[in-house]
Amino acid sequence: MVIGMCEGCQKSEVARVISALRQRGLEPRIISAGSNVVLGVVEEMSQGLAQELSQEIGALPAVEEINHFGSSWKLASRNFRAETTAIKLGRRTVGDGEVVVMAGPCAVESREAYLDLARKLAPLGAGVLRGGAFKPRTSPYSFRGLGEEGLRIMAEAREITGLPIITEVLRASDVELVARYADVLQIGTRNMQNFALLEAVGDTDKPVMLKRGMMATIKELLLSAEYILARGNWQVILCERGVRTFEPETRNTLDISAVPLLKQHTHLPVLVDPSHAAGKRELVPALARAAVAAGADALMIEVHADPENALSDGRQSLTPAAFAEVMAELSALAGAMGRSLGMAA
Amino acid sequence: MVIGMCEGCQKSEVARVISALRQRGLEPRIISAGSNVVLGVVEEMSQGLAQELSQEIGALPAVEEINHFGSSWKLASRNFRAETTAIKLGRRTVGDGEVVVMAGPCAVESREAYLDLARKLAPLGAGVLRGGAFKPRTSPYSFRGLGEEGLRIMAEAREITGLPIITEVLRASDVELVARYADVLQIGTRNMQNFALLEAVGDTDKPVMLKRGMMATIKELLLSAEYILARGNWQVILCERGVRTFEPETRNTLDISAVPLLKQHTHLPVLVDPSHAAGKRELVPALARAAVAAGADALMIEVHADPENALSDGRQSLTPAAFAEVMAELSALAGAMGRSLGMAA
Amino acid sequence: MVIGMCEGCQKSEVARVISALRQRGLEPRIISAGSNVVLGVVEEMSQGLAQELSQEIGALPAVEEINHFGSSWKLASRNFRAETTAIKLGRRTVGDGEVVVMAGPCAVESREAYLDLARKLAPLGAGVLRGGAFKPRTSPYSFRGLGEEGLRIMAEAREITGLPIITEVLRASDVELVARYADVLQIGTRNMQNFALLEAVGDTDKPVMLKRGMMATIKELLLSAEYILARGNWQVILCERGVRTFEPETRNTLDISAVPLLKQHTHLPVLVDPSHAAGKRELVPALARAAVAAGADALMIEVHADPENALSDGRQSLTPAAFAEVMAELSALAGAMGRSLGMAA
Amino acid sequence: MVIGMCEGCQKSEVARVISALRQRGLEPRIISAGSNVVLGVVEEMSQGLAQELSQEIGALPAVEEINHFGSSWKLASRNFRAETTAIKLGRRTVGDGEVVVMAGPCAVESREAYLDLARKLAPLGAGVLRGGAFKPRTSPYSFRGLGEEGLRIMAEAREITGLPIITEVLRASDVELVARYADVLQIGTRNMQNFALLEAVGDTDKPVMLKRGMMATIKELLLSAEYILARGNWQVILCERGVRTFEPETRNTLDISAVPLLKQHTHLPVLVDPSHAAGKRELVPALARAAVAAGADALMIEVHADPENALSDGRQSLTPAAFAEVMAELSALAGAMGRSLGMAA
Repeated sequence: MVIGMCEGCQKSEVARVISALRQRGLEPRIISAGSNVVLGVVEEMSQGLAQELSQEIGALPAVEEINHFGSSWKLASRNFRAETTAIKLGRRTVGDGEVVVMAGPCAVESREAYLDLARKLAPLGAGVLRGGAFKPRTSPYSFRGLGEEGLRIMAEAREITGLPIITEVLRASDVELVARYADVLQIGTRNMQNFALLEAVGDTDKPVMLKRGMMATIKELLLSAEYILARGNWQVILCERGVRTFEPETRNTLDISAVPLLKQHTHLPVLVDPSHAAGKRELVPALARAAVAAGADALMIEVHADPENALSDGRQSLTPAAFAEVMAELSALAGAMGRSLGMAA
Repeated sequence: MVIGMCEGCQKSEVARVISALRQRGLEPRIISAGSNVVLGVVEEMSQGLAQELSQEIGALPAVEEINHFGSSWKLASRNFRAETTAIKLGRRTVGDGEVVVMAGPCAVESREAYLDLARKLAPLGAGVLRGGAFKPRTSPYSFRGLGEEGLRIMAEAREITGLPIITEVLRASDVELVARYADVLQIGTRNMQNFALLEAVGDTDKPVMLKRGMMATIKELLLSAEYILARGNWQVILCERGVRTFEPETRNTLDISAVPLLKQHTHLPVLVDPSHAAGKRELVPALARAAVAAGADALMIEVHADPENALSDGRQSLTPAAFAEVMAELSALAGAMGRSLGMAA
Repeated sequence: MVIGMCEGCQKSEVARVISALRQRGLEPRIISAGSNVVLGVVEEMSQGLAQELSQEIGALPAVEEINHFGSSWKLASRNFRAETTAIKLGRRTVGDGEVVVMAGPCAVESREAYLDLARKLAPLGAGVLRGGAFKPRTSPYSFRGLGEEGLRIMAEAREITGLPIITEVLRASDVELVARYADVLQIGTRNMQNFALLEAVGDTDKPVMLKRGMMATIKELLLSAEYILARGNWQVILCERGVRTFEPETRNTLDISAVPLLKQHTHLPVLVDPSHAAGKRELVPALARAAVAAGADALMIEVHADPENALSDGRQSLTPAAFAEVMAELSALAGAMGRSLGMAA
Repeated sequence: MVIGMCEGCQKSEVARVISALRQRGLEPRIISAGSNVVLGVVEEMSQGLAQELSQEIGALPAVEEINHFGSSWKLASRNFRAETTAIKLGRRTVGDGEVVVMAGPCAVESREAYLDLARKLAPLGAGVLRGGAFKPRTSPYSFRGLGEEGLRIMAEAREITGLPIITEVLRASDVELVARYADVLQIGTRNMQNFALLEAVGDTDKPVMLKRGMMATIKELLLSAEYILARGNWQVILCERGVRTFEPETRNTLDISAVPLLKQHTHLPVLVDPSHAAGKRELVPALARAAVAAGADALMIEVHADPENALSDGRQSLTPAAFAEVMAELSALAGAMGRSLGMAA
């Protein structure tokens, strides 16, 4: 339930509404303060209670409007905020109409290789550098990343290129460490419902990129975002990266419909990861174009200087040269839609 | 196995290859005749036999090249034909680079309504008129279409607008009837593996639009196309229309990756049906744009003059006004990719 | 809507109900005649009309009870018939509490092999012989069965063993031919929504075994059965044979929950095919046991004298010796549930 | 790679094998000590290295046998241990042939209700008491359980009934707390790939029940178990609880084939949770019977004294009376298979 107060209403009038809610055991959140106060109530309530409240509170002169969320997600709902949330990352902003492209290798493998690649990606229009320092692996015997050493290398790449960095955090106990280095905290597909981790990143002031579980519905993705928002961190980017289906030709099936659906349901910006969905580099350009055409706010594309010898995900990584081609195609498409990739002319 | 003969080779040399194949119980097909003879062998063969044949036939001076299909689909393979098959439909051609948009209602409901709508769609850039006369229905008690009366109405719309018409054929025994009226025969998602029906349309000289089963793999779609090609009908358009997944927010999950995958695997042109995939009209524009961006050769979009009162699929149908907007967006996108919607300037 | 008339009511009273229905454009079916007349109305109707009819017809003294189907399937509904439909196949009956096991090879490969196997299966307790004469094949280049020759061989096996035979019919145009030989007509998973074929077998007087589409919901299976029932053929056995999922270790995922769900929703008997679901013979015994434990009325198990050299589905076929072991296990399980496999003591 | 030493071999001979492995950078684990030493190497190795090692080590006189795992799971593999791992829980043992049934409510709601229910379940044959103190909830606004208070209530129920207790642990940071109370630690479906949590329970000496992710493959489940085993905790019970599919009639589709597949692939015991799979209590008896028939070592069944008023999962909970009926059915079935439910006569 969202309660919009009249412009310039008295503090006492707001207090009266809050008091009426507390009498029913509801704790309102102040969504917007100042001259246009908006209160939000996220607790589930019976239809009877909702009607009772609507009548009683709606009758107060200082209350302008009462809206129900009409969905199980609340803070993430478009009914809560009509405007897409804009999240500033370095010189770019995700959610302001521009298409921001994040690029880099699956894992940080060595200092030289990573810095070299970062130097190549910056002039090609990448807005954010990606890289894995802590890698989630299905098998306990696989390469799990360089850890803090990888974070240090990424920070050095940021110094050199001026681009912000995004990397995955796997454990609640690692959040503080990763947040010391990274500009954006990534929650991976296997952790979308790791509620302890969601709350831990919700307690930071860093933007979070939340990947849809490969088995999760749109609704579940929004409810996981809700866990982060409910802790006070509103800078959440939602990521569509493919869902698991019966089709064996792709690693996962990119659910392109998730883009318009999420844009309809939530104010949070939407990023598409065509690389993990496809699992094959030759499909990445078409899927990246589809994502921009469908209205994605951002993309994340895996690039590796030498994909054939990558320690992980080489099969789906583009070379820098192929990445440059994709960026040119995306730029033309974005232009046709009145958008841009934010690349210098 | 595809066997390319040297340019201008003798008939006796071709005969010698054919004879060598027949001795092994293989019956080659003449894929291309004239001065550049190409022979195709579609029977499955053991690796041993394939090697033996490659050595023996490859040693003949008139044989220029031998290729294996490397896939279970043969005639549909890109290794069989490198060029995308172009299929002429009225003044437009599917597969020549232009984006052809087919539009119309789910079912033909009445003469007046259909002709009215057809008159509106033609100037908006529709290249083909769609409409259902025989409707496949999950329940035997649902409206099953007007039958031949519906076909006659569609034919009248063709007279008026000059646009070719596409409609579904449900039964092998109806193929002759439907082919008397329709310019393109549509095979629906439930019939993708109705092999009797595939062979029946394979025996006509009409272009066929083959919809992917809602839980069929890409490979199975190509093998179903193979049934049609194997009967001598090469005019097959493949249609991606969404697959069944666990996500309840969409009727089906549009598998946008199918577009680049099919373009890679086959020379047959690819159409996307965003309406049936989405099941909700508000998603159709984004999915249609994504399809064009991903490289689709054609689109099929449901349009109804009064979607709220449609007898079927109203929830996913656009109004003519919304269709006009989508066409403008698609035209801009296609332009950015060096393609066009073939609309008069 | 099912309308139960009072016991021994007058014909004129039945006529009055029929007339009231016809005035609303509804054509009732006589479900049960004699002294306990039951009428069924399968047409969809608005809630308003349903209420109006309930009041008007319910007020007639000769009307004892009116029930709504509460589901989109009607004739197949448990609300229509409370008793499980019993279908007599030779000396066994599917649906009367006994567990009937159908067994045989995927395809009839040769006369000698088939007759040999049939002679082995009969004393092991098989109740029906299976075998494929017309095989549905994903690829047009695969072995498609012996056709009528295969049917003749099966008929000979029936002569020898006294067991009825079941075989698949692929095309509406083949129904007459197959029905001349077979005791049970099988509709395959790819044809579950081939409505022309469903109607064709619905027009025969032969029992039909309808396989669930590998991509079909329980509801869709019941609506496909409805197509057969609506043509007047009530002898339909529903078959669960696995659905398509993301799990690669099995050919399909046997949906064991379908057994209790179908028993709840419909009066039609339920058969389980563990062989096609598993795709691996080592899983067949466990799945067959699970099916009996879950309440299946019948099973269909693939058996081949020499699975390693079978032309199709050898990987999932049991040897006769393994089949004998499974039968012993199933017999013990059925006994523990107060049922039997109907094998001679 | 598993290396079995000859019976009673010298320590120096074992040391020689270990040394040969370490020279290649491999760190063997001692799987079995005493007079029958078995060494395991879990690191991935190239085929070349594997052959080289087999030849060199296999030539040593004290080496009796070398086996490759032939799978990506190692410690969990049947090739590692041929015998099913038996896990003692109170007076019952999971994995020794008996069927152990765990029962209780979804969440511990109040002391009185839980203790009352526990008193009823014990004489009905329940072997372990279940109950949720920390509940994973898709929405942050749902009831999340009583926390430590719930654990205390469960411990009290153990005192009263003598039955061990199982409860879910959600966060790595909670493992120590939960392990102080619980006899078995449950990892929920959403946490199957929460690797931090897997390692944390792997560091305890408590048996772990690991639920399959609702869209995880069998292979992924085994690799997640591997995370626990690799930390030295070998007491892992694997749980099949249904996978996500397109079928809307059940909450999830119970993958009954997982039972024989897991029994084939691993020595770890297998439990089936029919309640969460079905999501409807009327399906639970049939699914429970199917699980026993398929060979499950244990079951977990939700029971609630008043399902209609349960705070969570009431729809799928049995009443104690219905549970008693299921136990009687299961006992008969188990008996027919030469097994028992371990209930006092």
